[in-house]
Amino acid sequence: MKAQSQTSDVVATISRSKASAKSALRAWLRLWACVGSVERVVRTRLYSDHGMTLPRFDYLSQLYREPDRRMNMTELSRRLMVSGGNVTGLTDRLVADGLVKREQDPSDRRVQIIALSDYGYERFIQVAREHEKWIGELFEDLGPDQMGVLNQTLGQLKQSLERKLNEQQEE
Amino acid sequence: MKAQSQTSDVVATISRSKASAKSALRAWLRLWACVGSVERVVRTRLYSDHGMTLPRFDYLSQLYREPDRRMNMTELSRRLMVSGGNVTGLTDRLVADGLVKREQDPSDRRVQIIALSDYGYERFIQVAREHEKWIGELFEDLGPDQMGVLNQTLGQLKQSLERKLNEQQEE
Repeated sequence: MKAQSQTSDVVATISRSKASAKSALRAWLRLWACVGSVERVVRTRLYSDHGMTLPRFDYLSQLYREPDRRMNMTELSRRLMVSGGNVTGLTDRLVADGLVKREQDPSDRRVQIIALSDYGYERFIQVAREHEKWIGELFEDLGPDQMGVLNQTLGQLKQSLERKLNEQQEE
Repeated sequence: MKAQSQTSDVVATISRSKASAKSALRAWLRLWACVGSVERVVRTRLYSDHGMTLPRFDYLSQLYREPDRRMNMTELSRRLMVSGGNVTGLTDRLVADGLVKREQDPSDRRVQIIALSDYGYERFIQVAREHEKWIGELFEDLGPDQMGVLNQTLGQLKQSLERKLNEQQEE
């Protein structure tokens, strides 16, 4: 291989990688803008229509998605991506309002479990039904094919990001 | 048209709209998860590698993207999607660190303009180059075709959301 063609290969690789970084940056800015817009609508409507804050809704939805509607505090904090102090304060208020209960793990008393109460479950279901309707309306301009492609690509991106984050934590 | 076929049309419409709401909800949860993961990495690296917080980076990037690197305070607050009080406090700290300057609009002295300083510009460019690299690495598992489709779909979603939000504000 001649020196010149080697150089042009390197140049091609660099410009390809620059182009893909630009394309990734564009995707990231669009992702961020879309999430910002949807979050703004959801936050406003949750509060005005149901007197519920977004962190509360997010908290309850994490428990709701578990088969036995309970989760240990460490995992819950991790999924909510907020600091431990904030989760403790939020938990106190949700317990006071009867939406969740604190339990002890029978196999390890040091582990704190948070469980969705029956009242919390009923309340969540009610709000989640509305939430699903709002999201449907916000995304309605995308046709079924586009929605399919979007879901497929985001599913792959989500998995890839989770793998990368786990690798970083293990380092 | 017979009553029965009318009914089955209605049923078909309802189940189509339910299916699309489910599909939209799935897309939303994936969008949110992806943004959460990327944001976590960006927030951590901005702070550990450059001693910069994400709200600061976001603030500077809004000014950087303007042709004359300045924006009025009202528009800046709107774009940063945080409350006015927070933007004022953040502005105070950025002014104290010499990254931005407060100016008065010559045509209307009541309007406050925020301008990126030369130092702020240099500092932003430095960090933004790294930021682009991180994003490129985080998205690298998506091929060019997938990235193209993702960008196209998100571009359309972004426009549709902006239109919906503007309509709501006008109501």
